Amino acid sequence: MAGGVGSRFWPFSTNNKPKQFLDFFGTGRSLLQMTYDRFLKIVPKENILIASNSHYKDLILEQLPELKENQVLLEPARRNTAPCIAYAMNRILAENPDANVVVSPSDHLILKEDEFVQTIKCGLEYTSTHDDILTLGIKPSRPETGYGYIQVADITGGQNIMKVKTFTEKPNIEMARMFLESGDFFWNSGMFLWNVKTIIAAFDLYLNEMNRKFEKGKDCYGTDQEQAFIDSIYQSCTNISIDYAILEKANNVHVLAANFGWSDLGTWGSVYEHADKDENQNVTLKCKTLLYESKNNVVALPEGRLAVIQGLDGYIVAEADKALLICKKEEEQRIRQFVNDTQVKIGEEFI
Amino acid sequence: MAGGVGSRFWPFSTNNKPKQFLDFFGTGRSLLQMTYDRFLKIVPKENILIASNSHYKDLILEQLPELKENQVLLEPARRNTAPCIAYAMNRILAENPDANVVVSPSDHLILKEDEFVQTIKCGLEYTSTHDDILTLGIKPSRPETGYGYIQVADITGGQNIMKVKTFTEKPNIEMARMFLESGDFFWNSGMFLWNVKTIIAAFDLYLNEMNRKFEKGKDCYGTDQEQAFIDSIYQSCTNISIDYAILEKANNVHVLAANFGWSDLGTWGSVYEHADKDENQNVTLKCKTLLYESKNNVVALPEGRLAVIQGLDGYIVAEADKALLICKKEEEQRIRQFVNDTQVKIGEEFI
Repeated sequence: MAGGVGSRFWPFSTNNKPKQFLDFFGTGRSLLQMTYDRFLKIVPKENILIASNSHYKDLILEQLPELKENQVLLEPARRNTAPCIAYAMNRILAENPDANVVVSPSDHLILKEDEFVQTIKCGLEYTSTHDDILTLGIKPSRPETGYGYIQVADITGGQNIMKVKTFTEKPNIEMARMFLESGDFFWNSGMFLWNVKTIIAAFDLYLNEMNRKFEKGKDCYGTDQEQAFIDSIYQSCTNISIDYAILEKANNVHVLAANFGWSDLGTWGSVYEHADKDENQNVTLKCKTLLYESKNNVVALPEGRLAVIQGLDGYIVAEADKALLICKKEEEQRIRQFVNDTQVKIGEEFI
Repeated sequence: MAGGVGSRFWPFSTNNKPKQFLDFFGTGRSLLQMTYDRFLKIVPKENILIASNSHYKDLILEQLPELKENQVLLEPARRNTAPCIAYAMNRILAENPDANVVVSPSDHLILKEDEFVQTIKCGLEYTSTHDDILTLGIKPSRPETGYGYIQVADITGGQNIMKVKTFTEKPNIEMARMFLESGDFFWNSGMFLWNVKTIIAAFDLYLNEMNRKFEKGKDCYGTDQEQAFIDSIYQSCTNISIDYAILEKANNVHVLAANFGWSDLGTWGSVYEHADKDENQNVTLKCKTLLYESKNNVVALPEGRLAVIQGLDGYIVAEADKALLICKKEEEQRIRQFVNDTQVKIGEEFI
């Protein structure tokens, strides 16, 4: 899944080039490319599908030139994850009804690649013989309030696949501390594994109307008619997440416990945490910096640009082609509001 | 004179487009254009000469398309004001040995244009009948430590042209307060008036070698040979200011007292002081801004750009094509050092 707009990183990420397409850490590969590289260790490249908004087609094919055009599934409208996954699963069903599938966001950070590969392979082995929905749960390392949590029914067996008890929203800090201590809560990573028949059955049950729309395209998938068919039905799909529509309702959902150094990179704070820092705890992304009496900042300008900064402590300094943002790190949750204000008061061209 | 590099305003002003070529206040005219407009009220346009570095020839002709190419005197090297003025005066002498001349920087701010015109006309009347050097002295309004001062010999007569007693360097605040109270000190504006014979005589006396170099070109001035001649001698001229070389030595220097709302716009502080401010005392130059919990800042980005700023108090935020500067207003005297560091540590391309 590579359709997000990443407005929390505006203006470093923009509608035209959201987070998954950026090389956040200066490795030479964008988050999407790193996700692709990771999955190449698990599946042959022709089995990888990228689902994204039509708007990003060229960007995807440019960043992943190894892909054939029909490996990129284009959503003509933003409708959250359920329609996106319904589309991809019906397409896969048409090609291979025995397929085992991993669904993954393309803008997350994974530090321990070997453990990632091992975990995914273990999950796929499980789904090839069980009609269960697996959701990847990350063993929490701190009382994080920025993530949703999943509680499992029974942790005592020591196995790494456990039946889900409840999904919870982002907790406050006291709750998060309790979750961490209890040992039976996992971070909800948004990565899923299943065999395609299992998830299609779940769509049939919980999102029947949506699933029937995509079912009707079974003769179009993989042909020249696919895009026209999708364009004709996608707009009318309910805007809903797969978590809310299916995961929280189905009774065959299990957590696959994982511990591979994961971050959803959902905030500047999490990017700051994972990036290299200078001796004054400043993070420089992509650009060059000269810093004086400055600490704890994250500076993210486009490649080839320079920031000379004096006397800043704890700020985000981020820039794209036309817009510059300077904002205290602790106020970063307001960036979406700033983007909104910019749209309303200044103009679309800066978004 | 339009040859300055304005590094104190880096990166808003750059080597490629220094301060005099910028429309600081969003009036639609650059400081150079405003200076030109002002002098059009005093002399016909064909009597205006612009002296600048060769580098800025195209920029000058673009900003002042009314000028003929030979009204732009091009210095092939930076040699401070004395060689620049020696060149211009010898050129004028060749064209009209009876000329009365005003020499003026092109990057100053003058608020009361009518009083400016009146003062200059009064000075020109004086120099047409006196072989004196006039330097424009601004009646100080505050104990400014950023300017040089001129003390006059006798203030009691109430006249507005007074013999100079001493030139002083930039004072500390205690001295500046004493100067202000004493009533016989004026700010040194760097604007001069004289008849051309008087200044040539002074050059002959105090910068004889330099003057003889320019004298040799008398048959070239105004012809196709002028530039080649200047290029052949300019480099070898002493790098020295007219103040130091002549004004502080000659005994026929008088102050023409002026009071027309003047600033040399030599610092961000002075630009900040003269620019329009929002209700939180923020100044926005050229660009668009959205400001939250921010006050006392000056934000100067290129036209068409947007700055969204949260939680800044008392900063300069300035940007050009490739470089961004964020710096406390009170630390602005360090900008030259930052530019230096950038040149040494990062690269010429950002200067």
